[in-house]
Amino acid sequence: MTVQLPRKELFDIPAGVIYLDGNSLGPLPATVSAHVTDVIEHQWGAQLIRAWNESDWMGQPARVGDRIARLIGAPAGSVVMGDTLSIKVYQALAASLELRPDRRIILSDTGNFPTDLYMAEGLLRTLDGDHELRVVDPENVEHCIDESVAVVMLTQVDYRSGRLHDMQRLTALTQEAGAISLWDLAHSAGALPVELTATQCEFAVGCTYKYLNGGPGSPAFIYVRPDLIQRIQPALSGWMGHDAPFAFEPDYRPAPSVQRMRVGTPPVIQMSALEAALDAWEGVDMQAIRAASIALSERFILEVDQRCPALTLASPRDPQSRGSQVSFTCQHGYAIMQALIAQGVIGDFRAPNIIRFGITPLYLDETDIISAVDILQEVLDNERWKQPQFQVKREVT
Amino acid sequence: MTVQLPRKELFDIPAGVIYLDGNSLGPLPATVSAHVTDVIEHQWGAQLIRAWNESDWMGQPARVGDRIARLIGAPAGSVVMGDTLSIKVYQALAASLELRPDRRIILSDTGNFPTDLYMAEGLLRTLDGDHELRVVDPENVEHCIDESVAVVMLTQVDYRSGRLHDMQRLTALTQEAGAISLWDLAHSAGALPVELTATQCEFAVGCTYKYLNGGPGSPAFIYVRPDLIQRIQPALSGWMGHDAPFAFEPDYRPAPSVQRMRVGTPPVIQMSALEAALDAWEGVDMQAIRAASIALSERFILEVDQRCPALTLASPRDPQSRGSQVSFTCQHGYAIMQALIAQGVIGDFRAPNIIRFGITPLYLDETDIISAVDILQEVLDNERWKQPQFQVKREVT
Repeated sequence: MTVQLPRKELFDIPAGVIYLDGNSLGPLPATVSAHVTDVIEHQWGAQLIRAWNESDWMGQPARVGDRIARLIGAPAGSVVMGDTLSIKVYQALAASLELRPDRRIILSDTGNFPTDLYMAEGLLRTLDGDHELRVVDPENVEHCIDESVAVVMLTQVDYRSGRLHDMQRLTALTQEAGAISLWDLAHSAGALPVELTATQCEFAVGCTYKYLNGGPGSPAFIYVRPDLIQRIQPALSGWMGHDAPFAFEPDYRPAPSVQRMRVGTPPVIQMSALEAALDAWEGVDMQAIRAASIALSERFILEVDQRCPALTLASPRDPQSRGSQVSFTCQHGYAIMQALIAQGVIGDFRAPNIIRFGITPLYLDETDIISAVDILQEVLDNERWKQPQFQVKREVT
Repeated sequence: MTVQLPRKELFDIPAGVIYLDGNSLGPLPATVSAHVTDVIEHQWGAQLIRAWNESDWMGQPARVGDRIARLIGAPAGSVVMGDTLSIKVYQALAASLELRPDRRIILSDTGNFPTDLYMAEGLLRTLDGDHELRVVDPENVEHCIDESVAVVMLTQVDYRSGRLHDMQRLTALTQEAGAISLWDLAHSAGALPVELTATQCEFAVGCTYKYLNGGPGSPAFIYVRPDLIQRIQPALSGWMGHDAPFAFEPDYRPAPSVQRMRVGTPPVIQMSALEAALDAWEGVDMQAIRAASIALSERFILEVDQRCPALTLASPRDPQSRGSQVSFTCQHGYAIMQALIAQGVIGDFRAPNIIRFGITPLYLDETDIISAVDILQEVLDNERWKQPQFQVKREVT
């Protein structure tokens, strides 16, 4: 049974807000607060330590991972939750390099989110000093994949422009060159159909507080292609990845499954928010999400083109080359976004001059899109962004 | 102003339960649920992405770190929260080895919690293969500290026996040998007075779901001696440790403070539970906690000695050599603990034959201790542990 979109009734979005920042932090699903209260009061509070068994806290990272797996075209048992995306990138990269011990290059692109590149830097410093992180322009990635490359690490959707990599094609090129393919799905999971099994990439990682609406700091996920699991010796070999965590053996012995990618004690309360949030995805067809996302995005671009000449589209014009966000460059982008937010249209700004709008068909419809452009036009036409309060920069922009 | 102990009114402990497992998972503080609900509904729900600024989510890891710092004798600005204890061990170990590039040995002991040793194994595999993890008996640590040792990594309180290392003395011996001192305070923070500044150790890490009552999966902390901060280049170099996370610079440039030990997006909801839980520590004098802990532990041991001959004390008899738990070895320990739990006395079991009882003066008094031993004696005298339902082993013991 496929559900109808949007599902606004499943979200607590404040009155007067058109939320176009679900690509950064998804809004609050309506069932989350009660579920977290239940976990706190009736599991932690009443069951105390017994909740690890009685409420199956131990099984939560795999149980939630299976629900994410469905959304990214992966089989049950291939995804596990925990830590942050940065940590998961580190784990996947370290494993990739171990799978290609004779190669020395991590290939990535300038469209990758900075923390992926930073984590690679840290790993390479920790390693022997022989490896190299090579960062090229997104359009040059395919020309730089050769037999010196150990791993190609890419974020499928560029966080600034929304530019979408052809995952199938780049993975095939990577594997033809004998390299490992590692995909960051931060802006893909819940945004568009991903078919990990079909793509055959070795690793994928992602976060769950964007399109999946898990809440601020919701844990990350990692996918390992099932045939590889037993060949990977985790660099971050924590007790929760041990085959028998409560045997307290002196030496690390990895679990036979993807559970070996677990590290420390899972954030049970935080993950409970995600677990409830995922209910909003039950019965949702990712192809329907994609179709709605494209329809809404196309309308948004069309309206802006016609009514807001100060903005220049920074996303690919072809919807097939775009993720589920629309970005524009414009002068005074920071102040314009602040003025928009003050009027209830919440998008965000990315330095130096990009304003971004996330398109999330779970809780947005065409009326929202038209209203958002009405307000955007009004802010621009009446130069509301020139008001002094919109010029003050804050830490998180 | 120093508060009186215990502070039972600050905790929601179920009726009929005597909770002696606060060394594993602290009970629910009474204000946590309402605070987390507020963060979910009024910060995430209402402020949405703006909460990073308006509710200072960005500042939470340092703000909470400062509150932990007071409890472990560290200055404000030297402690930051995030990730899990396993990850923090990895960070501190990697930094230690970089500070002693000419040395090759990590020295630890068999009393360390296994994940610390596992994480060291993983780091050493990631490094060049030249390093060695040397694990000796706790009483031999001091004889094995020499000028080949890069870092001495110890957990102050043994998770099984409660044996307490002399942190001051071992740190001094470590530093005389030119090595780095890394302390795991998992069973120390909130359990007994720790004076990091006075001890002068280089690194300390710990978790917050035990004596600090932060809830299941509450984030870990890391302390770095302030004079070292700027000399450390983090191995896990995530964007939240960057000097300017939202500048999205292509290269990692660590924050000038302990914030460089942050990695990814913090678990805001999970950390909010901890933040509320720490209110129970306001005005609490750690010396008073220690005095009460010793008084309760001594009474517990005395009563068990007199009434339960099947149990043999596995903790040091001298309270000055013991943390804030009391352990016994006994045959059928698993079943005995299950029978105890069924009667409302909650401690835990650690393989192969240890039953543990956490002594937590924040919410325990002498009446609880006497009642617990009454029930323990009854379980043993009437062989209640022989009932079949107490023989079934579960995953988390």
